[in-house]
Amino acid sequence: MHNFSEENSREETSLDPADWDGFRASAHAALDIAVDFLRRFDHGPVWRPVPQEVREALKEPLPVDERSLDRVLADFEANILPYATGNIHPRFFGWVHGAGLADGIIAEMLAAAMNCNCGGRNHGAIEVENTVIDWCKELFRFPSDSSGLLVSGTSMANLVGLAVARNSRAGGDIRKRGLKNYPRTLVAYTSAEAHESVARAMEILGFGSESLRKISVLQDLSIDAGALRAAIAEDRRAGLEPFCVVGCAGTVNTGAIDPLDEMASICSAENIWFHVDGAFGALAFLSDSLRPLFKGLERADSLAFDFHKWAQIQYDAGCVLVRRGDLHRAAFSMRPAYLRRASRGLGSGEDWPCEFGPELSRSFRALKIWFALREHGARKIGGVIERNCAQARYLAKLVSERPELELLAPVSLNIVCFGFRTQRLSAQEADQLNEEIVADLQESGVAAPSTTRVRGRLAIRANITNHRTRFSDLDVLVDAVVAAGRARTGSSTADVAK
Amino acid sequence: MHNFSEENSREETSLDPADWDGFRASAHAALDIAVDFLRRFDHGPVWRPVPQEVREALKEPLPVDERSLDRVLADFEANILPYATGNIHPRFFGWVHGAGLADGIIAEMLAAAMNCNCGGRNHGAIEVENTVIDWCKELFRFPSDSSGLLVSGTSMANLVGLAVARNSRAGGDIRKRGLKNYPRTLVAYTSAEAHESVARAMEILGFGSESLRKISVLQDLSIDAGALRAAIAEDRRAGLEPFCVVGCAGTVNTGAIDPLDEMASICSAENIWFHVDGAFGALAFLSDSLRPLFKGLERADSLAFDFHKWAQIQYDAGCVLVRRGDLHRAAFSMRPAYLRRASRGLGSGEDWPCEFGPELSRSFRALKIWFALREHGARKIGGVIERNCAQARYLAKLVSERPELELLAPVSLNIVCFGFRTQRLSAQEADQLNEEIVADLQESGVAAPSTTRVRGRLAIRANITNHRTRFSDLDVLVDAVVAAGRARTGSSTADVAK
Repeated sequence: MHNFSEENSREETSLDPADWDGFRASAHAALDIAVDFLRRFDHGPVWRPVPQEVREALKEPLPVDERSLDRVLADFEANILPYATGNIHPRFFGWVHGAGLADGIIAEMLAAAMNCNCGGRNHGAIEVENTVIDWCKELFRFPSDSSGLLVSGTSMANLVGLAVARNSRAGGDIRKRGLKNYPRTLVAYTSAEAHESVARAMEILGFGSESLRKISVLQDLSIDAGALRAAIAEDRRAGLEPFCVVGCAGTVNTGAIDPLDEMASICSAENIWFHVDGAFGALAFLSDSLRPLFKGLERADSLAFDFHKWAQIQYDAGCVLVRRGDLHRAAFSMRPAYLRRASRGLGSGEDWPCEFGPELSRSFRALKIWFALREHGARKIGGVIERNCAQARYLAKLVSERPELELLAPVSLNIVCFGFRTQRLSAQEADQLNEEIVADLQESGVAAPSTTRVRGRLAIRANITNHRTRFSDLDVLVDAVVAAGRARTGSSTADVAK
Repeated sequence: MHNFSEENSREETSLDPADWDGFRASAHAALDIAVDFLRRFDHGPVWRPVPQEVREALKEPLPVDERSLDRVLADFEANILPYATGNIHPRFFGWVHGAGLADGIIAEMLAAAMNCNCGGRNHGAIEVENTVIDWCKELFRFPSDSSGLLVSGTSMANLVGLAVARNSRAGGDIRKRGLKNYPRTLVAYTSAEAHESVARAMEILGFGSESLRKISVLQDLSIDAGALRAAIAEDRRAGLEPFCVVGCAGTVNTGAIDPLDEMASICSAENIWFHVDGAFGALAFLSDSLRPLFKGLERADSLAFDFHKWAQIQYDAGCVLVRRGDLHRAAFSMRPAYLRRASRGLGSGEDWPCEFGPELSRSFRALKIWFALREHGARKIGGVIERNCAQARYLAKLVSERPELELLAPVSLNIVCFGFRTQRLSAQEADQLNEEIVADLQESGVAAPSTTRVRGRLAIRANITNHRTRFSDLDVLVDAVVAAGRARTGSSTADVAK
């Protein structure tokens, strides 16, 4: 690209703004763009496709020369900002995304200014993360000598939890000698409705996904504890070594809650690690009325959950808690020479986060969580969670009142799976129809549910993990689904009523 | 915490500001705090310890009630902002941290407003990440059908690269059946000077760290290619299956560069996956004069590197590239029902990032990279990298000119390992002395080098990965080390000259 002579390279221009006042003005203009965008969250469509000309505009070669910040900002405003995922909108019901918070903008700009690396060492960001982890211990009734780590999300948190489970079962030698040299075959258990990140963690950790038994579910789509007991017994008889059970505190498909207390007892009796995937459901612990549904979660050996879902915190922000901090550290701690802990100075500090997970480079995720929990408080966030569950019940009621619509799964929490039906369509045609309805809604921008399959049938899935959703948004959703279904089938209410 | 009745939970207060104008004013005030902090980067100490009273103030119980945003902001300014890691300062030389960019503040606030989840689906953030990955392919001369993924850093990137290597060697079955059922023992190779994240990846993936052969190094601390060849041959004779060689494009201790081209040839001849850990060094590819040092890097099967190091982008921002995109996808892709790809709408889109790594929840990291590379351009960032290397040579020269100082490793790139010496001290006492000197410098706030061990000796390690560092900062560093050493030993120049 260029060839600096030694002399040129002594030229000491940093990448900082040559004109700080100009930079400040641009930054304030950018902030107004950000605030305006968020303030008008429901003035535009939930989602709009990226037009082909915008895709082309984004495909430029590696930039070699400088450009003005204002030019970059203008390109951002034209080609990127209008094409967000859509989860800031009150009628985003697709997948389990939180909506984000206005104060997240502030927390993220401040974290960017500090530019901390939270892998370790002794500085303020580590203290803030410790505070956030302490809050989690308090919320989930974990003991004070438990440990925790902020991660990108529950996929990573499940990976960490299962790695600790593996190490705790097999002993420190497993870190050196690996699974191949371990004398027995380790197996784990979870519900057939569990999130794929559990199987993915099993793959990454070298167990293989077949070492994860997918246990059948009951009518309410929670795990069949009897089948779990039987599977453990059968594996023991076959000479395998059960080491971990993963409970679902709110399944991704329907929000079903496993019988966590019973699973904790099974694990305790069987001497098996109990990990709970509480991706979105765990934070229902913030509500007195919902907490009893999750009884037993507080007995988990490790717990994975996200702040960017029901706590509405900006992406990404997940967490893993481990009941026994010593086992957590033993599974990950490494102290090579360049990370040696000093007794004083910047290289000191008690526990370094890099000793509790796979990452050494870590952003200051804790700040946005600290900001949000301190500004809004647990009570108000818990109120949003309760309201979302009430809204799911309301949506289920709306569905039941429409002859064209059918509820496809029980509503345990905040997820409603339903479908448009007509008697004239085969099962396959109905699946196709409901998939088209969801795409129609997304493309129209009126609402963004997603799809899943429940007991083999394609369902329109509305997940309400959104502090901006109003009850009236659910009326809009149902009206839009019915209208789209009728438009596609050429039917009218009269047809359906026949 | 509270118990909403159904009626109460219908109350539709979101977590958005009740007063958007007030929020906007607070946000602008916060932005001025951020800009002022960055603008005055060298008015304060590099680092200062967190005082005990601040630690105590941060230790509050889980907040239950609301607080005003301005109160939270004031607490941040008092208790968090002054205690950053320090890497924004021109005399931060500890570990390999980039200094961050002013425009990172803007990019992060805009990403926070959009609050995208970059796990997948069809939206603008995914397009931006694709563009950034295409830039990486262009920079590193990877083919157009290669693939890439932004991750938190090289620890994760190494994990992903080695997971693809494992899967490519053992076949798709390894994902299902695991290492225990694989007929042979897989082994990998890297330099004795390699970063511990390579061993950690081997542990996480279930191989065990003993399956990673640490090959001896030459005088310049790069891997001994002959010893590598011999180790592979010996393992083959013993019936083991070599599957991966990890080359170091800049070691963490001294910046040594492995003979990447020769290693690529060995791997090609032996049919072994060639992964390169280019955490900070790989981006020296931005410089015409430095690129020849890394010849062979462009032949890697997979490459791990960080943007938050030499590209100065805010934490965290790492990347993994994989030459064969099909193998990359085959190692991670999963498509459960709730992530089924639709042909249109928000659930469409070609490659979803969650098919290329362990994360499903992913922040919009690509935006800050897109901003920085477009504003500053590759040429100017390459210039900073060249200057940092020239500064390392300058520092080595300063060290060689001081009788009290001794260079402890060859300077390959941007890292200088040196020590204060006096003839009156044993090796152990000298190690202790140099450790104290580093802590003295950190605590005084004048500069923040770190320590490591080179051939068994504790070294003061100055890593220059910092666009703000001026040549004069290195004079300050050397003067401060000498002054601290003299103060601790009670020596004078006269003593040393004896």
